[in-house]
Amino acid sequence: MPAYKAPLRDIRFVMDDLLGFSDHYKLLNTSTEIDAETQLAIIEEAAKFSENVISPLNPIGDQIGCTWSADGVTTPPGFKEAYQQYCEGGWPSLAMPESFGGQGLPESMNIIVSELVCSACVAWSGYPGLRDGAIKTLLSHGSESLKETFLPNLVSGQWTGTMCLTESHCGTDLGQLKTKAVPSSDNEYKLSGTKIFISCGDHDMAENIVHIVLARLPDSPAGSAGISLFAVPKFIVNTDGSLGARNGVNCGSIEHKMGIHGFVTCVMNFDGATGYLIGQPNKGLQAMFTFMNSARLTTALQGLVHSEVAYQGAVPYAQERLAMRSLSGPKNPDGPADPIIVHPDVRRLLLTIKSFAEGFRAFSYYVAQQLDLSEHAKSDESKAQAKQLLALLTPICKGFMTELGCEAAHHGVQVFGGHGYIREWGMEQNQRDSRISTLYEGTTGIQALDLIGRKVLGSKGALLTNFSAIIFEFCQSLQDNQSMQEFTQPLSESTTEWLTLAKTVGQSAASDPEEIGAASVDFLMFSGYTILAYFWARMAKVSFEKLEAGCEDKDLYLSKVNTARFYFQRILPRTATLKLTIESGAASLMEMPSEQF
Amino acid sequence: MPAYKAPLRDIRFVMDDLLGFSDHYKLLNTSTEIDAETQLAIIEEAAKFSENVISPLNPIGDQIGCTWSADGVTTPPGFKEAYQQYCEGGWPSLAMPESFGGQGLPESMNIIVSELVCSACVAWSGYPGLRDGAIKTLLSHGSESLKETFLPNLVSGQWTGTMCLTESHCGTDLGQLKTKAVPSSDNEYKLSGTKIFISCGDHDMAENIVHIVLARLPDSPAGSAGISLFAVPKFIVNTDGSLGARNGVNCGSIEHKMGIHGFVTCVMNFDGATGYLIGQPNKGLQAMFTFMNSARLTTALQGLVHSEVAYQGAVPYAQERLAMRSLSGPKNPDGPADPIIVHPDVRRLLLTIKSFAEGFRAFSYYVAQQLDLSEHAKSDESKAQAKQLLALLTPICKGFMTELGCEAAHHGVQVFGGHGYIREWGMEQNQRDSRISTLYEGTTGIQALDLIGRKVLGSKGALLTNFSAIIFEFCQSLQDNQSMQEFTQPLSESTTEWLTLAKTVGQSAASDPEEIGAASVDFLMFSGYTILAYFWARMAKVSFEKLEAGCEDKDLYLSKVNTARFYFQRILPRTATLKLTIESGAASLMEMPSEQF
Repeated sequence: MPAYKAPLRDIRFVMDDLLGFSDHYKLLNTSTEIDAETQLAIIEEAAKFSENVISPLNPIGDQIGCTWSADGVTTPPGFKEAYQQYCEGGWPSLAMPESFGGQGLPESMNIIVSELVCSACVAWSGYPGLRDGAIKTLLSHGSESLKETFLPNLVSGQWTGTMCLTESHCGTDLGQLKTKAVPSSDNEYKLSGTKIFISCGDHDMAENIVHIVLARLPDSPAGSAGISLFAVPKFIVNTDGSLGARNGVNCGSIEHKMGIHGFVTCVMNFDGATGYLIGQPNKGLQAMFTFMNSARLTTALQGLVHSEVAYQGAVPYAQERLAMRSLSGPKNPDGPADPIIVHPDVRRLLLTIKSFAEGFRAFSYYVAQQLDLSEHAKSDESKAQAKQLLALLTPICKGFMTELGCEAAHHGVQVFGGHGYIREWGMEQNQRDSRISTLYEGTTGIQALDLIGRKVLGSKGALLTNFSAIIFEFCQSLQDNQSMQEFTQPLSESTTEWLTLAKTVGQSAASDPEEIGAASVDFLMFSGYTILAYFWARMAKVSFEKLEAGCEDKDLYLSKVNTARFYFQRILPRTATLKLTIESGAASLMEMPSEQF
Repeated sequence: MPAYKAPLRDIRFVMDDLLGFSDHYKLLNTSTEIDAETQLAIIEEAAKFSENVISPLNPIGDQIGCTWSADGVTTPPGFKEAYQQYCEGGWPSLAMPESFGGQGLPESMNIIVSELVCSACVAWSGYPGLRDGAIKTLLSHGSESLKETFLPNLVSGQWTGTMCLTESHCGTDLGQLKTKAVPSSDNEYKLSGTKIFISCGDHDMAENIVHIVLARLPDSPAGSAGISLFAVPKFIVNTDGSLGARNGVNCGSIEHKMGIHGFVTCVMNFDGATGYLIGQPNKGLQAMFTFMNSARLTTALQGLVHSEVAYQGAVPYAQERLAMRSLSGPKNPDGPADPIIVHPDVRRLLLTIKSFAEGFRAFSYYVAQQLDLSEHAKSDESKAQAKQLLALLTPICKGFMTELGCEAAHHGVQVFGGHGYIREWGMEQNQRDSRISTLYEGTTGIQALDLIGRKVLGSKGALLTNFSAIIFEFCQSLQDNQSMQEFTQPLSESTTEWLTLAKTVGQSAASDPEEIGAASVDFLMFSGYTILAYFWARMAKVSFEKLEAGCEDKDLYLSKVNTARFYFQRILPRTATLKLTIESGAASLMEMPSEQF
């Protein structure tokens, strides 16, 4: 297993050269100034922590995993101690509101820290990550009393949180859920039912766990209109803030999973557990959706993470492993064979991974900037604009990046040949860990329906037109730039095609609603490839400028131009197939009766 | 984990309706007649054995795996007993030569048995499977004395075999290997060295293991011209055939792998182990290649197997799991939601898997028929023709089918949502088990170089022209068949494009040999999609004929036509992208210097 090395140079390329983080922060209303020095200090500290404290836990977490007993779940050796260090370093509160003890930094800084920690050990990173949903739910919908009771310790990381949604018979379709909440005394309810797939449902890393639980009140309407939201702590919090009695919520068992073994997944039994209503009765589901964008973005990051881990593993191996001679003559004539990085197909795999990892970094940091703007922009207009972009980009970011993160992890194994299949090199763990990313926080199919149904057709194309205008403007601004034509021409064509396809689907959906689902995932992927082309074109542009200006780090900028070329010649052409399959319509999917399967 | 159910109806569709096994067998010189009744008896017995004896071992093999001790490797509970039953049933000798106690059945019958056993438990199926290489090596290159000593017990399955090729520093590039063989007495050598990744290197299922080992004689030429082949038994065989002393070959450790945990992978230490030369000195590597076709075909089968397992798992789940309503109105109005098989994107996943599984069955049985003909055809001309087809089709079969087998296994997990990621349903095991298939027996990259370099360009296009003539003839014979035009037109176009791309690559390779590697895998995949289109068109044709003739089993034939349509509209368009990436050439892969990665 290779030790993780934080890719600080590439992160700074995106922050400084590509997305101008310092200028971006001037557009925000924040209490503290976030200058270049502060940014650098944060990412360098996070890099050290990730490399030195978290990365060593990655193989341990996988091989030992979590263990269940009736007394609770034990996390892998070292997880708890690392979490303590993480809290002592103030990391949990980085992007949390100052009113509850947070440091108030924007989401775009936090996401870089998340990338680093998650790349070092995706299983470990879930524990602090899961607090986010609980905190944001309480912030947006909790009463003042609930906020005061729970938020300070959640923000500091002293307590962690969960989101208890799924039941064995329903995940996506939460309208079917059965867990009950019965009023008991003033402001208190008793919850009964069983939730499954509860990440961090129980563990030994924090002294209390605040579960945010979806349940039904007595006589509530059927379906999703009858779901309410509750806070259910593992230990009851006394009025003086101390921890009181153990509440009636227990981990009944834990799941045996393909990967992320260090990240516990629990069956949680609620037996008359005391809970507190969050927000209005029967409005629980809507409350959940308000912060979905940031949760999905965090999951989307895993596409970047698994690509980065695959790349960091595969490149040194390809540079060192000697096998066969280059077809164009020996490249290592004094050795017994050439390093496999000379072989074109090995390069195809490596460049595919590289174009994903670096492209995703650009894409996800850009989306994080929109999160910043949506919350902290100085004008309401800017906020609204950012929210529109977020609405469109979030499902693409989640669905597209995680699908390709799985592909990158697969290629990472492939570069190693048979060695990729054994534990030693960490590549098979990366592939197993990656596999969950297209499933949780909404499967790719769900992201795709959200994109084409709610966002594209739901806005009558407006969201798509807005974003494509940004791309067209970029292309037009470069129409006299000869060296950029190899990028701007295909980018412009792909964007035009994207708009056309959206119209095509919209028109055919008017007569057959199944056309929406039939086109959905291919449309999401088409969108992703076009957007990634936009970011690769922007990266090429800024690299050309740096090279012309006679920069240092020439290799970095040359590598960006080369990778952009690879992306446009070898990856963007995937849209040719997607156009054909989208246009083929719903018939080939829908005509076969269920019993013929 | 769903119990495996042998897909006998679909197997008979391919044997009877599509490929006419009974007529095919009349073309062979075999001692016994293999009539329809015999065929059915064999596959029905193999089905029972696979379902009842082997399938229950699949989760056990995964969860318990193999254990190492200094005394040897212990296989998972039940593996040994099942192997004994397998031998008692006469399965190991089915397609083995009668001169050594085999039953002399053709490879095309054996491959169906392999499919069934392998689908039931891929880890278990490796143990009898690995004998094949040892037996074929001895048959083709061993002395009469070696054959008499080793073959009868290998053929009966009483002993198993291995192929000891890989060393830690070389797998693909065997010219680098270092294991030494020093002559000791008459016909005997002492072997020393360490081999890794030795499948079935040690285990408790058979009383002796015959290792076929590549090693270097003293003063042999460097590289692949200095490699010889030896038989090294675990126990020395006395002249009376009884087992003698333990030989100096031991399993030093076993690998921790992503999947196929029940299939042991050993580090084998040779410490002056007694070995016997097979064939000529320094001709070991050539000897190994003679039976590569059948070994690669067996591995190719795993693409079929993992698709079939994914399909058998995912379809019932999709038919039973209730979530959301169909966009075109409730399909299960009395239930709380519709089964997810009503949703277009779930159907896209299922139909993708189905089109692979059934397409691969047709493709691989067809290739097995060519194996039959290459060995047993009545005329030398037919043998030569079959050998030419095999040379072209084998790397495609191995590379293409295993790549898409991995894809199918991935989709199998996806259909289950989060449930796919946990052990219970067997889908994550199927994906882990599938991952080795593109790595061993030559990675996809190696298959692709073999295809485009040795087979296509090496024959100056002749092999490709021969096979494409078969496809064109099929299309031309149907030019007046209106209902077949939706298949024959795109098939014909794709085949024409296939030939054009081969020429394009050949021409650009003349000035830059890197163009071969740059195009290789995409060309292999293009070839595979075109060939699968040929088989789906043939399946559609025979199904139309059956339906017109007023057959029973209408659902089967309708399902074939629907799946063929899906394949042509949703899968074959992948060639559009591959054409573009092949034509993009080597520059985008080769221009970046190694240090810029």
